[in-house]
Amino acid sequence: MAVIGIDLGGTKTAGIILEGERIEERYREETDASSQEGVLRGLAQACSELMEKAARRGIGIEAVGLGIAGFVDFERGVVTEAPNHPLRDAHVRDILADKTGLPVFVDNDANVAALAEARLGAGKGSRYLVHLTLGTGIGGGIIIDGRIYRGALGAAAELGHMIVLEDGPMCNCGARGCLEALASGVAIYRRVEEAAAAGRISPAVEEFLSDPMAFSAETLGRHADAGDALARDILSTAGHHLGTGIASLVNIFNPDAVTLSGGLLGCFHHMEGAMREAFEGTAIAISRDHVRILRSTLGNDGGTLGAALLALEGLS
Amino acid sequence: MAVIGIDLGGTKTAGIILEGERIEERYREETDASSQEGVLRGLAQACSELMEKAARRGIGIEAVGLGIAGFVDFERGVVTEAPNHPLRDAHVRDILADKTGLPVFVDNDANVAALAEARLGAGKGSRYLVHLTLGTGIGGGIIIDGRIYRGALGAAAELGHMIVLEDGPMCNCGARGCLEALASGVAIYRRVEEAAAAGRISPAVEEFLSDPMAFSAETLGRHADAGDALARDILSTAGHHLGTGIASLVNIFNPDAVTLSGGLLGCFHHMEGAMREAFEGTAIAISRDHVRILRSTLGNDGGTLGAALLALEGLS
Repeated sequence: MAVIGIDLGGTKTAGIILEGERIEERYREETDASSQEGVLRGLAQACSELMEKAARRGIGIEAVGLGIAGFVDFERGVVTEAPNHPLRDAHVRDILADKTGLPVFVDNDANVAALAEARLGAGKGSRYLVHLTLGTGIGGGIIIDGRIYRGALGAAAELGHMIVLEDGPMCNCGARGCLEALASGVAIYRRVEEAAAAGRISPAVEEFLSDPMAFSAETLGRHADAGDALARDILSTAGHHLGTGIASLVNIFNPDAVTLSGGLLGCFHHMEGAMREAFEGTAIAISRDHVRILRSTLGNDGGTLGAALLALEGLS
Repeated sequence: MAVIGIDLGGTKTAGIILEGERIEERYREETDASSQEGVLRGLAQACSELMEKAARRGIGIEAVGLGIAGFVDFERGVVTEAPNHPLRDAHVRDILADKTGLPVFVDNDANVAALAEARLGAGKGSRYLVHLTLGTGIGGGIIIDGRIYRGALGAAAELGHMIVLEDGPMCNCGARGCLEALASGVAIYRRVEEAAAAGRISPAVEEFLSDPMAFSAETLGRHADAGDALARDILSTAGHHLGTGIASLVNIFNPDAVTLSGGLLGCFHHMEGAMREAFEGTAIAISRDHVRILRSTLGNDGGTLGAALLALEGLS
């Protein structure tokens, strides 16, 4: 049985054909995020190109799965709201089902990434799993009893918006001290910006000042690799907050595994020590001693694999 | 169908006979917490007295449910660890089943309180519910898809040990800034103690100084009722932290209801305004606008009713 899995990102749309546990084909294109129509046209194109590839190879596609950053009402297949796309109350499932003639399943991108980790990734076999995507922001997915947990309206697992430090830095969501405001790519960038504004000088800050737009957590990680103490301090502080957030999640869920994916994994070796120290010192012993905290083993395929698994399991 | 429900507290053991949704008999006795044998003897006595009462009235008892503050491995019926009882790896289910000849079900007290709220209490009919017991400490229970969520080892829902303010006051669990260290009876007591130590004078502090051992959150609430500004400030601060904690839980679970029970409800009118303000300003709109935050309507019966429901649903 083969299915299509699509990961709709803010800048890229990636797709795969999954047959069994094998990726048979890939698709990658810029996302046209200029309008709702543009996004939907891009999704339809991804499906039709992958279906053509499948047809040429005699692979029968049985369903389409889709992961989208945003609030998704899974039952109705509607994207209620999306931070990086012009999608508002978009009936994505029905529109794509109409275009493809296939069953379509739509969910939040971090939810399907969690599913991929629990089925094929670092958390393979976990019945209770918490997943965090560490990128520009922090997304979350929760697997309970082997299935994605969505809550009453599909808005659950906003784990980046758990408050870790009341009265801490302002988050994009309007609250203060969210995990995302302390340990995401944006949070790390802001700390570099603050260090620059405060006149703290280090190779990382100099590179930041020479071209702020090109600077990223990855750049900071390279400076930390080269021994920049300020860069190391910023990444280790973010790791500390992440460890506290994970401790709260472990106390709440008593999970088998916490898995981590996303762009920040590139500089995660500078965060991990402080993360584990904060976690070990904070979580309750029974849950702490049971859980494994693991990096994703799926790399960039987590999103598309998760979307494909969503479709596969939706069929059964 | 009638069942026994027992709530094993640190000082009192309460029991009921539940038939349908009616409480037919009650039992109440001091808890002998001097030894594991004392606790188990007390539980067996509660069962036998309630069974005698049932027999006299011709009511057939079909099972026993038990709620205990502590870590409970529900699958095995074992109390792993309990903060207020000398129970360690106690095979409570099998011991009581042996004494009574009935099926016995054992769970954490806040878990069964959550079940009671979802079935018969303020959150009646909720599919997704988060419950907080606000007393000396803060306990938590989570209902997902209508059932108690226990996690991998039964240690889940330690909602009092979600970190709300990193580097905040020390909690009994060894971490800093847990919800319990900011918004429980113990947290409130500590703030009064600190005010007294700092020489802040108010009627509440004077009563505290005259007899610290007799002072409680209830005493503080009475002073707040009478207009004591310091008392009001302490309770409103606790309410603020509680509102932040609830916002995190609502962002994580997207629940239908959050229900609150416990001794602090007696002075909750001084906490509620700040709680709702912090909650409204922090939670994500979709989940915030859906959830209802409700006081328990079950009073002191929440624990025994929940234990009875655990037994009733365990049978089916």
